[in-house]
Amino acid sequence: MPTISKKGANMPSSPIRKLVPFANAAKKQGKKIYHLNIGQPDIKTPQAAFDAVKQADLEVLAYSPSEGFEWYRDKIVEYYGRVGVNITSSDIIVSTGASEAISFVMNSCFDAGDEIIVPEPFYANYNGFSKAGSVKVKPITAQIETGFALPPMEDFEKEITPQTKAILICNPSNPTGYLYSKEELEVLKDIVLKHDLYLLVDEVYREFVYDGKTHTSVLTLDGLDEHAIVFDSVSKRYSACGARIGMVISRNKEMMATAMKFAQARLSPPTLGQIMGAAMCDVPQSYIDECISEYDSRRKVCIERLKKMEGVTVPNPGGAFYLFVKFPVDDTERFCKWLLESFDHNGETVMMAPGAGFYASDLGKQEARLAYVLNKEDLNKAMDCLEAALKVYPGRV
Amino acid sequence: MPTISKKGANMPSSPIRKLVPFANAAKKQGKKIYHLNIGQPDIKTPQAAFDAVKQADLEVLAYSPSEGFEWYRDKIVEYYGRVGVNITSSDIIVSTGASEAISFVMNSCFDAGDEIIVPEPFYANYNGFSKAGSVKVKPITAQIETGFALPPMEDFEKEITPQTKAILICNPSNPTGYLYSKEELEVLKDIVLKHDLYLLVDEVYREFVYDGKTHTSVLTLDGLDEHAIVFDSVSKRYSACGARIGMVISRNKEMMATAMKFAQARLSPPTLGQIMGAAMCDVPQSYIDECISEYDSRRKVCIERLKKMEGVTVPNPGGAFYLFVKFPVDDTERFCKWLLESFDHNGETVMMAPGAGFYASDLGKQEARLAYVLNKEDLNKAMDCLEAALKVYPGRV
Repeated sequence: MPTISKKGANMPSSPIRKLVPFANAAKKQGKKIYHLNIGQPDIKTPQAAFDAVKQADLEVLAYSPSEGFEWYRDKIVEYYGRVGVNITSSDIIVSTGASEAISFVMNSCFDAGDEIIVPEPFYANYNGFSKAGSVKVKPITAQIETGFALPPMEDFEKEITPQTKAILICNPSNPTGYLYSKEELEVLKDIVLKHDLYLLVDEVYREFVYDGKTHTSVLTLDGLDEHAIVFDSVSKRYSACGARIGMVISRNKEMMATAMKFAQARLSPPTLGQIMGAAMCDVPQSYIDECISEYDSRRKVCIERLKKMEGVTVPNPGGAFYLFVKFPVDDTERFCKWLLESFDHNGETVMMAPGAGFYASDLGKQEARLAYVLNKEDLNKAMDCLEAALKVYPGRV
Repeated sequence: MPTISKKGANMPSSPIRKLVPFANAAKKQGKKIYHLNIGQPDIKTPQAAFDAVKQADLEVLAYSPSEGFEWYRDKIVEYYGRVGVNITSSDIIVSTGASEAISFVMNSCFDAGDEIIVPEPFYANYNGFSKAGSVKVKPITAQIETGFALPPMEDFEKEITPQTKAILICNPSNPTGYLYSKEELEVLKDIVLKHDLYLLVDEVYREFVYDGKTHTSVLTLDGLDEHAIVFDSVSKRYSACGARIGMVISRNKEMMATAMKFAQARLSPPTLGQIMGAAMCDVPQSYIDECISEYDSRRKVCIERLKKMEGVTVPNPGGAFYLFVKFPVDDTERFCKWLLESFDHNGETVMMAPGAGFYASDLGKQEARLAYVLNKEDLNKAMDCLEAALKVYPGRV
């Protein structure tokens, strides 16, 4: 039997995937599960997006240009203008979700053995894309005590070697919700300019910021045109994860020309998704405002409830729709399994993503990620479950 | 300025891409171009596929499972049953076009430095996916004189080293249209069993076979369950290239479990594409039969016309919708540019894909790929252009 690749063997499974059999078993037992484990919003996709597809009068569902339709990229330029970022359509390659955008950039910037520095905890799939290209992820640990703020510059400097090609952050962050300030971005700017690195920023949660804070796109920082690369997506902004429309945005012409070669090899992004994407660019600001307000009120419910649970540490993050929480338990992977397998509160339980999967180092064993993608009533019930569970969990510490 | 990757720098551009500026200039001059350069069919996508999307009553366009919706994979199993292949839904991972299926398998089976043997001329993007994983493509040249039949077993044996992990073919072939016989597949079976290799077969043109021939899927050969991996797609079969729905099919559980980890890292294939895909599985055989009959009549038009042109060599391939043709010219890249830049026949000209881009070796300079994806009237006019051009092209040999 032919062997699989070493990189395939070493590729980590999704941190949530391991729990799926336990969730399926729990459902079979008739338990109701509140899913806080994945970033699949329950918010309605704008009707205009569905209408655009219904009204599209196509006879042949053809390929689009590899970089995306010109009319869609023009719409993206308009959207970016509204959030205060000046780009042109040639700074955009439309991809199949932000996932593919990351993969284009991984291929364009990194050879096997190159290194990328990422503050941890980080979006688990960054590991996957790095493994695919045999790129080494070097984590720098952010602390729950600071709410997962940017680690000090010295921590970055210590990890930089001649193999280091880039620093990658997600702003606001999946999985911590942390919103990087303009000052923190300036620190990163200094580091990448000093060491001639790329600064990759995943900004898919750009709109979702709270407490009167504002988001700073790395694309608005002066002097970073050759360094800054942004990953973006319609998935979270418009609750359209299944459209599979993302994008790479950069003013670095050489990098974009290289990324285009990888884009051409996979032919094109989805045509219907782009039709929806263009319609979503015209969705009124009130849609986004309502999403923000809804997420903010859910965030408050979760934080308030979690703060009342003894031994639980919950930061007050400024963005996205995640909380990264420390629990008074032996191991959240065991705790999350136990929640599905051995616990219920009036026939209900909760599913979370264990924290260790978001670390490249050995940390995170007492932490878990909660996505507040359910309505407040369900969130309150999920919190009831957690509260009751922490009182009886045998591995409590 | 940070440097791009070596693999990005070495990544080939699409063989057609180089001609695009010349085509754009020709259009600006008011020339009409007959596009035989890309495999974008003009056949109508089944109306049922568009209707399925219009009727889908979705509120949230959510992620699908990473392996594709169960109800879609069940439909694919039914389709495969109708073409005489027994698989189960766990043998299928739905991908974003066959392109992504290839990339999953590249990641799952190959590490940097591993080798893959591919008869040339081959689909140019195989090069791209190999480059992305630093996999070495070792070409074995098929000859136009045999119609691009499978090269003899000895040619393969000569190229096999300890680094060889797989043989890859496209059946019927893009770019040659060659339909591999059951006997040729048996030869490949012997080689892969002897040397414990994977046998990767791109079968996206499976239905399009002519002259009473039949297609043999590698999945019907005994003893290859651990070796055979098929790439498939709805793009050509149902003229739905923009749906971006493909799939990996294999009975090798370990390889599929590995591929699933890469599938999970990119989250999911497009949701609307899968809705269309499921509807297309129910399209009556008459739709496919009409496509075959239409392509066959176009194939005959092109072959008949090309055979009458002095010095042109055109095989009579058994499948797909391509012809790989040898022209009495110095260099088809130059010839194709000249057709766009310096030639017209009553204000019209033709665009083809130069042959060299389909070879990993230095061959193919007198060859070009023609996709017969236009109606017969247009194809005849395109042939008028070619015929007139060959009479006056300054680089004729």
